[in-house]
Amino acid sequence: MIIIWKPDRSSSQTLYHQIADEIERRISYGEFPPGSLLPSERKLAEQLGVNRSTVILAYEELRALGIIESRTGSGTRVCKNKWEATPKHTPNWHRYVEGGQFLPNLSYLRRIREALQKDSSLIDFASGELSSQLSPGKEISTQMKENPFTEYLGYDNPQGFTPLREELVSYLSRYRNVQTTDSSILITSGSQQSLYLITQCLLAPGDAVAIEDPSYCYSLPMFQSAGLRLFRLPVSNNGMNPEDIRALYKKHRIKMIFINPTFQNPTGVCLDPTRRMQLLDVASELGLPIVEDDPFSLTSYDGKPPLPLKSLDQLGSVLYIGSFSKIAASGLRVGWMVAPHSVVERLADARQQMDFGLSVVPQKIAAQFLHSDNFLPHLERLRMHLQYRRDLLVEALQKELPNELSFSIPQGGLHLWCKINLDVNDNQLFEEALRRGVVFVPGSVYGSDSGYVRFTFARPKEEEITLGVAKFADALKAVLL
Amino acid sequence: MIIIWKPDRSSSQTLYHQIADEIERRISYGEFPPGSLLPSERKLAEQLGVNRSTVILAYEELRALGIIESRTGSGTRVCKNKWEATPKHTPNWHRYVEGGQFLPNLSYLRRIREALQKDSSLIDFASGELSSQLSPGKEISTQMKENPFTEYLGYDNPQGFTPLREELVSYLSRYRNVQTTDSSILITSGSQQSLYLITQCLLAPGDAVAIEDPSYCYSLPMFQSAGLRLFRLPVSNNGMNPEDIRALYKKHRIKMIFINPTFQNPTGVCLDPTRRMQLLDVASELGLPIVEDDPFSLTSYDGKPPLPLKSLDQLGSVLYIGSFSKIAASGLRVGWMVAPHSVVERLADARQQMDFGLSVVPQKIAAQFLHSDNFLPHLERLRMHLQYRRDLLVEALQKELPNELSFSIPQGGLHLWCKINLDVNDNQLFEEALRRGVVFVPGSVYGSDSGYVRFTFARPKEEEITLGVAKFADALKAVLL
Ligand SMILES: Cc1ncc(COP(=O)(O)O)c(C=O)c1O
Ligand SMILES: Cc1ncc(COP(=O)(O)O)c(C=O)c1O
Repeated sequence: MIIIWKPDRSSSQTLYHQIADEIERRISYGEFPPGSLLPSERKLAEQLGVNRSTVILAYEELRALGIIESRTGSGTRVCKNKWEATPKHTPNWHRYVEGGQFLPNLSYLRRIREALQKDSSLIDFASGELSSQLSPGKEISTQMKENPFTEYLGYDNPQGFTPLREELVSYLSRYRNVQTTDSSILITSGSQQSLYLITQCLLAPGDAVAIEDPSYCYSLPMFQSAGLRLFRLPVSNNGMNPEDIRALYKKHRIKMIFINPTFQNPTGVCLDPTRRMQLLDVASELGLPIVEDDPFSLTSYDGKPPLPLKSLDQLGSVLYIGSFSKIAASGLRVGWMVAPHSVVERLADARQQMDFGLSVVPQKIAAQFLHSDNFLPHLERLRMHLQYRRDLLVEALQKELPNELSFSIPQGGLHLWCKINLDVNDNQLFEEALRRGVVFVPGSVYGSDSGYVRFTFARPKEEEITLGVAKFADALKAVLL
Repeated sequence: MIIIWKPDRSSSQTLYHQIADEIERRISYGEFPPGSLLPSERKLAEQLGVNRSTVILAYEELRALGIIESRTGSGTRVCKNKWEATPKHTPNWHRYVEGGQFLPNLSYLRRIREALQKDSSLIDFASGELSSQLSPGKEISTQMKENPFTEYLGYDNPQGFTPLREELVSYLSRYRNVQTTDSSILITSGSQQSLYLITQCLLAPGDAVAIEDPSYCYSLPMFQSAGLRLFRLPVSNNGMNPEDIRALYKKHRIKMIFINPTFQNPTGVCLDPTRRMQLLDVASELGLPIVEDDPFSLTSYDGKPPLPLKSLDQLGSVLYIGSFSKIAASGLRVGWMVAPHSVVERLADARQQMDFGLSVVPQKIAAQFLHSDNFLPHLERLRMHLQYRRDLLVEALQKELPNELSFSIPQGGLHLWCKINLDVNDNQLFEEALRRGVVFVPGSVYGSDSGYVRFTFARPKEEEITLGVAKFADALKAVLL
């Protein structure tokens, strides 16, 4: 075997995969006919300049695929039957699946998803969304019956359905004090797609960005998939500290700030008004864009959410992201971004390559719902119910675990963030709770240390909350034993 | 100025942008206070080892931003007012917009989109979709009225709405002779998102893939945005030649084959049955996956489309992609992929990071429509109308331009592919036609030489086709003068 080929050490593919690939290719090209002897592991390792263990893994992989076989004493040979006459084989899907640049989702999140799919009777403190009781399902259903879809169902404007963008202009002005025009709005598949488009299209691999700690962003391998370097902005009771930005900029030359300033996920904290102004000042001094992810503000239990950064942003430093998910229905998949027109155009154009835009149908439903007389009463009902659920959760936690947990009581949002005051193994607690029929999200998913828990009180049935906490308390006591 | 910094020549950012960035950062850090003198262009060019013209551009950019100013005789200085007291500025959005890894869409496609947005009276031979006359708008509207949405609108199964996947299992078996299960199906935002997920998640930058020439794929900067190297499979009257695969594999080690074998976009050609078998053989010999993009087959005018590769694929080499766009409505944004379960899982997981999945609403509409008694009559009506439109187009072309054009008459699909037998400037023809109120897609968009045109006969109003061709003929004659 004349080896002019060498594995590429800078590739993201492991060395042994590369070697297995190369050998397979040579075999399929007849360079090694069926039955022929392959070089010994030692020899091949020498020729390729790799460890013998690397070659062992490469051969092992080819053996598993039935391409080669080894017999003690007679070395490693190309399989006969596999390659006889017309050798045919299935693509090595395993290798394709491992090969791309997208990191898999966090294992806790997969584990939660699988558990919920398997057992619908679990008490769900994990899914960060509204239950069907809280969603305006009836309103939407009636609205669809009364206004069936008659628009042309063709490829639509890449920025999104125009009537929805127009509704959002008045929604943003009325509810968020944000003045904008429909040409500065991009409709996306929830806030999620806004974040995805920003990380993919406005940043390049290797760029540094600042995100809150803890934060929803840590639950998203998306940032790492885009090759970004993440730097932390610790969140305290009044939010992140704007002065931290300066140091990060100086040291790491961060290019963007991602922040969820109002009823933050997972902590429930609001960035206080002074800090909002300071953050805008620092960002504009450094010419840094701020991504303001603001899905929760309209859930404010007293109906008076803090003003978004965007409403104070005179220089145009803020990309403002909103969504229907947390105030109406996550399954509609309707979100939006307010941004300078050049940014909106760029992202809309890139999005054409990804999915050709959102379906018009849910966009029309969203536009109608915003426009309808049902929207404001729905919001008011939602706030009341969320507050009631929060109270149920807080009472149950205080009763069942008065000393074991610490938390602040959130004034809006869907989540309660708890610190466990005792030493506990996250994983054991998670599994024990699951066994007892309760699922929650361990805080480490959001980048925090171990010993934190996020409870979503919007998702379980109202009547399950107290029972769920009792089960959680049992689980905690069991793993402390 | 002590320059320890050097621009990175391997970066995708231009040198002058990098230099402007760096200077701006130093200014904002006070390294150059307001009013201070910057190095001369010549000197800075020397220190950085770049051309003087590069520094000129960098300074020009900073001047445009109002960060520095130059006066003849007194050199280049940091602006005073901009940086006094609390210096504040807007992020340089221009640079963010240029910075990402997504290539902009082709300029012809943007030009077409803009023209159509501006002037809705244009005769549209360009948009590759069904007109409202051909879409089942009425059926869908009635169906929505009779079955309003009552399902819970939460985050759904990442593989897609289960009832739709179940309907697709029987649809695929009945209409495409593809036997599968709902766990092997992924619902996507049209075929577009299936292609996107495959290029992003199963391939890595630098990988080589084979695509047909001409092909829809060339209209997608998506492939280049994913960093893939494209190699061509020329398409003749009976499709691409499977033997070409071997050479590409040997030379470039292609990793995947993308093919649209039935009523190919843009040529309308079908890969003949013998070649289908050969292609499967070659692919399985080399262990190469085939992506079969099959949006058009059910438009077959005689109702007997060729069997897809997937129905002949015994080894599981084929990823099969379908869509509602070309047989019902592109604005629904419902497509699907049939793939090994491990692949479906991987792509579904990655997709969670991008958009959290499709809205349930259009998926339910699609499921109901497939299930309904309206589906088959709709298909039959669609085929009749498409054939009628094709005939209108062919007659008009033969009458107006009997010698100037050559084309084969397609037996299915939405498009007719023409060669212009005379020397003509693509761009002049395009602009002249636009001036006369007709828009089409120049063949170069699909990777062909100049002198080709794609006419979509599904999109304009039936009664506009003949007039549109007359206008096109006038435009062609005008640019030949
Ligand atoms: C802070 C934050 N941003 C964005 C999202 C994404 O939500 P969606 O895409 O449904 O709008 C979530 C969902 O949990 C969230 O908590
Ligand atoms: C061959 C081919 N594949 C895929 C697509 C994407 O269509 P959609 O995403 O609407 O299914 C098109 C659209 O023109 C096409 O022609």
